[in-house]
Amino acid sequence: MAGPMREIQLIGRPDGVPTADLFESVQSPTLEPRPGTVLVENVLLSVDPYMRQLMDADEWWPLNTPGEGRALGRVLQSETPAYAVGDIVFHRQGWRTHAVVTPDESRRIDEAPGVPLSAHLGILGGTGLSAYVGLKRILNLQPGETLLVSAAAGGVGTAAARIAKLLGAGRVIGTTGSDEKAKHLVAEVGFDAAINYRRGDLVEQLAAAAPDGVDAYLDNVGGEHLAAAIDVLKQNGRIAWCGAVSTYNHQADVAPRNLFDIVDKELRLEGFLVRNHLDLRPELIDFLTPHLRSGAVTSDETVVEGFEHLVDAFLAMLRGENVGKMLVRL
Amino acid sequence: MAGPMREIQLIGRPDGVPTADLFESVQSPTLEPRPGTVLVENVLLSVDPYMRQLMDADEWWPLNTPGEGRALGRVLQSETPAYAVGDIVFHRQGWRTHAVVTPDESRRIDEAPGVPLSAHLGILGGTGLSAYVGLKRILNLQPGETLLVSAAAGGVGTAAARIAKLLGAGRVIGTTGSDEKAKHLVAEVGFDAAINYRRGDLVEQLAAAAPDGVDAYLDNVGGEHLAAAIDVLKQNGRIAWCGAVSTYNHQADVAPRNLFDIVDKELRLEGFLVRNHLDLRPELIDFLTPHLRSGAVTSDETVVEGFEHLVDAFLAMLRGENVGKMLVRL
Repeated sequence: MAGPMREIQLIGRPDGVPTADLFESVQSPTLEPRPGTVLVENVLLSVDPYMRQLMDADEWWPLNTPGEGRALGRVLQSETPAYAVGDIVFHRQGWRTHAVVTPDESRRIDEAPGVPLSAHLGILGGTGLSAYVGLKRILNLQPGETLLVSAAAGGVGTAAARIAKLLGAGRVIGTTGSDEKAKHLVAEVGFDAAINYRRGDLVEQLAAAAPDGVDAYLDNVGGEHLAAAIDVLKQNGRIAWCGAVSTYNHQADVAPRNLFDIVDKELRLEGFLVRNHLDLRPELIDFLTPHLRSGAVTSDETVVEGFEHLVDAFLAMLRGENVGKMLVRL
Repeated sequence: MAGPMREIQLIGRPDGVPTADLFESVQSPTLEPRPGTVLVENVLLSVDPYMRQLMDADEWWPLNTPGEGRALGRVLQSETPAYAVGDIVFHRQGWRTHAVVTPDESRRIDEAPGVPLSAHLGILGGTGLSAYVGLKRILNLQPGETLLVSAAAGGVGTAAARIAKLLGAGRVIGTTGSDEKAKHLVAEVGFDAAINYRRGDLVEQLAAAAPDGVDAYLDNVGGEHLAAAIDVLKQNGRIAWCGAVSTYNHQADVAPRNLFDIVDKELRLEGFLVRNHLDLRPELIDFLTPHLRSGAVTSDETVVEGFEHLVDAFLAMLRGENVGKMLVRL
């Protein structure tokens, strides 16, 4: 028998930075699995930057409903031969304690010894896959090359550094918003240098950290970070662009001042959406699992405990307070 | 014996659109070939959009000197076994009637029957090579695809349409600045549709001309054209960017309003400089020569007669008054 069921609904649209009063935690109708589905109790929920974009429009996140979101749930009741009670399944009905899901809209997580469950929402999940697609398929990162990563302390940023080192990257440089996070990125995550962009001129700091220039840039931020990267990229440098966190709260001014240098420096700027590269997931899992088991790689994460802190976790993630993937454990 | 020698010097820097008073036609010192060089009399000179950029800075075009520029010259005196008197050589000492060149900084033009000499400054020269590199190497244009070309009536634009059709492009759409040029592009050059961007909303006109969207965009213009192209490109569309004519006269506002759609539409924006792709020139010449001989392809050109009209030709080209490559015949 499932316990009380709750969900967090969006009840207003943000004007700029979202606030807690735009959300409401409510009791949900009691869910029962239909034939061909399972009832799951969520055990881990992911909060991600892209959710800020979803908040802007009714077609993405209708008011008075819980959002979509990556989640791991344990099967409580199964009405399909695809899953047994106790299985852990990945699905996309976040922002709630329970969900009814079909096999088509979910997949079973094969629990491997030595691999924490949370890694499946972190370096093995969409977050790690974003990093892997960017580095392998878009940037075609080569051994010895210098890589720059923005939003380096986030889920994608930390995963990118760990994966880049496994791929043989030379120098890996990150940008983040505090000295404390910059120190952590070098000491714990494996960055060769990390820059606090609030500390001074970004271009000068990048030029000092990468005196020979940057070969490849994985961009989560856009705006001034993209402009600064264009300044320090080498001729024929590549940019993989998978987000523009800097613009989610204010849409203006997304275009860098020096865009035309893309011609003069013969740069390649390529956008990608991880959802169109899911074919690489088995390769990512095969690639990383031995390194996770041996301890050579960690799925960096900040875990907040308790469903009632989901909104706090989401807002803290938007403020950049997490290091690694931001998760909520129920 | 060579006739009187003249050159056109830059005597001031433009503030915005260049004017004729920034140039001066002067008699040059009498040139004599040194050992290892030849004296050539120029027969055809090229004027190109990139020269507008060169005018801005002393390191590119020093005041009181003639500019660099693509040129064809006939050998008058040879002090090297590499060239004989009467040979036609390509070199980069434009803006003058005569030049002394070394074999290293020039190459002999093999005159082929049925191929006009001017084609070597047009579709077989740097202009055609810009189009070919953009279509083949950067865009990897596939048979049946829809191609958009900006500055379509210019040298690169007309060459791009002719080459794209030979490569099997489906629909080829161009943008230009007058109804007359738009008509000419469809009637004579082989565009399937041509848009006068002054006639109305560019995005609406493009959407009407390419109802199924655009696969690939060869951009010479930047600015609002780049933004409009981003609007009509299909998911995973590609942009080859080789110039930003719209910004040469006023540096501000080069960045399109909708740049972030590069992520959502998973576009690839890649800059290139033709000078770093000269390895493709033999392939281009082999590819086009039979089509030029058979008459299947023309090197579109506007030819101005007389060295003393070089500045007029350059300024008219910047105003977009040419159709095809703008050349000056001496």
